[in-house]
Amino acid sequence: MIDKNPQLITADATNFGGKWDEKFAKKQPIHIEVGMGKGQFIIGMAKAHPDINFIGIDVQVSVAAVALRAALDEEQTLTNLFLIAGDGEDLTEYFNDGEIDQLYLNFSDPWPKTRHEKRRLTYKSFLDTYKQILRSEGRIEFKTDNRGLFEFSLTSLNNYGMIFENVWLDLHDSDENEGNVETEYEQKFSAKGQPIYKLAAHFAK
Amino acid sequence: MIDKNPQLITADATNFGGKWDEKFAKKQPIHIEVGMGKGQFIIGMAKAHPDINFIGIDVQVSVAAVALRAALDEEQTLTNLFLIAGDGEDLTEYFNDGEIDQLYLNFSDPWPKTRHEKRRLTYKSFLDTYKQILRSEGRIEFKTDNRGLFEFSLTSLNNYGMIFENVWLDLHDSDENEGNVETEYEQKFSAKGQPIYKLAAHFAK
Repeated sequence: MIDKNPQLITADATNFGGKWDEKFAKKQPIHIEVGMGKGQFIIGMAKAHPDINFIGIDVQVSVAAVALRAALDEEQTLTNLFLIAGDGEDLTEYFNDGEIDQLYLNFSDPWPKTRHEKRRLTYKSFLDTYKQILRSEGRIEFKTDNRGLFEFSLTSLNNYGMIFENVWLDLHDSDENEGNVETEYEQKFSAKGQPIYKLAAHFAK
Repeated sequence: MIDKNPQLITADATNFGGKWDEKFAKKQPIHIEVGMGKGQFIIGMAKAHPDINFIGIDVQVSVAAVALRAALDEEQTLTNLFLIAGDGEDLTEYFNDGEIDQLYLNFSDPWPKTRHEKRRLTYKSFLDTYKQILRSEGRIEFKTDNRGLFEFSLTSLNNYGMIFENVWLDLHDSDENEGNVETEYEQKFSAKGQPIYKLAAHFAK
């Protein structure tokens, strides 16, 4: 299915850097989601923001295929969406320096054990990667329900010198929640009444 | 009562700067609490840490008097504790530059309306004051149950360039909670099962 839809997905984005504008109907800012899961967020964002090109990435090919299925099932063809079955560690192989405007991390694996902290998508080695592919002062929006991961991430992004724009400690009970596109996981989880945390921040110049 | 206990409290700490060592039995690092309320925290800290000198400050004279009463009621005289009935805005009149090692803010007034944000004790003008009286890389420990104030404070301290050491989004449900001294308010509030937020951070050099 992936091979049959090269207009919408690739399982090898190596050397796509610098050529992303060709993948979309219009040349406009590019936002990416690292760990898109089944794609509800990135598809919802693509529908809500036709003036932005969106790229969803997931390391699991079977999961990326589910997102592909969902994108194909949309009534209107989304000409501002592209999907990658690929690894968040390889972003610099997929994108040129400064090519991306904004990056989303939603409900990433918390890797709760201290010995696994390097695997958390907000660990400093990942921030190095994000900084490289993002434009100057590029933004990250990060959502999670996991308290330990959010505590770690606040400290990690701060220690990296990132500038916080806004913090939400209960996103769904906030007045400043307009336009929030929920992930599958977020929908299930917040229905239980547990808080969703969110951080919006950008890299220093 | 305040006038009768000059060994323990003053209602006018103006020009005490540089002479604080005289107020204590020993010359050792000084920690202050801005907004001590009835004093349970600062008295508890003084008892738990005899190797540190503690100064509790509250703007309301009647509240400072309650803390004085509590300190006098202790079985053992606390020779590492001093109280000030005074204003957090006037800290630079009470302390010389760099004289303080650490500063505590506990359950400060949240001033929830945006037009009152300048009154919040984590607003940047207060951070200017704290930075001045704290030593290089001086620390702040901040606790609150107020979600809006904590969200604001995370952003305010980050934007000021402060370096986060640790964030707790539910202090009483954390493994790293040893030695936590509770305020009166914290005791009541956490008994209801609601989360206590804490941030430990220091100023950049």
